[in-house]
Amino acid sequence: MQRFEEKTMTSKKIFEGNIIDVQLDEVRLPNGETAQRELVYHPGAVAIIPITPDNKIVLVEQYRKPLERTLVEIPAGKLEQNENPLTAAVRELEEETGYTTTNLSQVTSFYTSPGFANELVYVYVTNDLIKMENPPAGDDDEFVEIMEVTLDEAKDLVEKGRIQDAKTNYAVLYLHALTK
Amino acid sequence: MQRFEEKTMTSKKIFEGNIIDVQLDEVRLPNGETAQRELVYHPGAVAIIPITPDNKIVLVEQYRKPLERTLVEIPAGKLEQNENPLTAAVRELEEETGYTTTNLSQVTSFYTSPGFANELVYVYVTNDLIKMENPPAGDDDEFVEIMEVTLDEAKDLVEKGRIQDAKTNYAVLYLHALTK
Repeated sequence: MQRFEEKTMTSKKIFEGNIIDVQLDEVRLPNGETAQRELVYHPGAVAIIPITPDNKIVLVEQYRKPLERTLVEIPAGKLEQNENPLTAAVRELEEETGYTTTNLSQVTSFYTSPGFANELVYVYVTNDLIKMENPPAGDDDEFVEIMEVTLDEAKDLVEKGRIQDAKTNYAVLYLHALTK
Repeated sequence: MQRFEEKTMTSKKIFEGNIIDVQLDEVRLPNGETAQRELVYHPGAVAIIPITPDNKIVLVEQYRKPLERTLVEIPAGKLEQNENPLTAAVRELEEETGYTTTNLSQVTSFYTSPGFANELVYVYVTNDLIKMENPPAGDDDEFVEIMEVTLDEAKDLVEKGRIQDAKTNYAVLYLHALTK
């Protein structure tokens, strides 16, 4: 797809954070014109659809500062530097839910906002959850509340807008499709 | 969910762009500790699942600078200031595909990356496409190629990673669930 390519003319680092970097590029378009591209770089993330032996979905509710509200989501977290996504998925599952597993299958992967960000989320599912005696502590600055809900209850949370994020809406639709 | 709330202590504007604003907040956590929050503000977006009379999905391929590659996506675009999402969906459908419609149903809405961004995407579907004689021009800096594919072809594009973004993976799964 060479004919679409946007050639970088200048690149300006705007911000280097702990989670994201922000960069402003000037690009040459296929028609020779120039345009500005606002770019957010993110290390990528993992998300897990954890299904309990009694067929409930383990969800976490947490405050999301960009929205100034809580969301109910599948467990997820960003990749550490050079971390294998599967390793990260086990780590986040353990830290956020107190369950572990020896069996995770990848469902899909997707960029969340390809227009301005390079964040890629790997989505896994597991039906083999093992309750941990001594689960590891999560990040110091994360406060989450765990919920175990049926698929119908999850659909109701979508209806009510308490579930309203890409990976979790995808997860609910994925489980819905499995039952049909 | 008062107990989860993160109270803003200080707020620092990092960047004001055409598409995103970036802000760095220091927050007070529920346990009294402080933490830093890197925040990306976005006006929100719309995406449309356009189904032709012969049951094909209209997709657009375009270069995504944050990824330095092209993606195949459902038509989408960001909201103009104070724009109604439904109006925006008709506008983006017309600009990107040359089709219009008088009938759009909302499928869902979701935040794409609630950990660091407030971007909310409204997803619509339409089975009533009308080919336009004189479609409006899109943004000057957008180069898209239109494709019309069957659901099986779309699933194949997901397999191959040419479709790999939240809204489009959701759309393919949505159409898959409808057929079951």
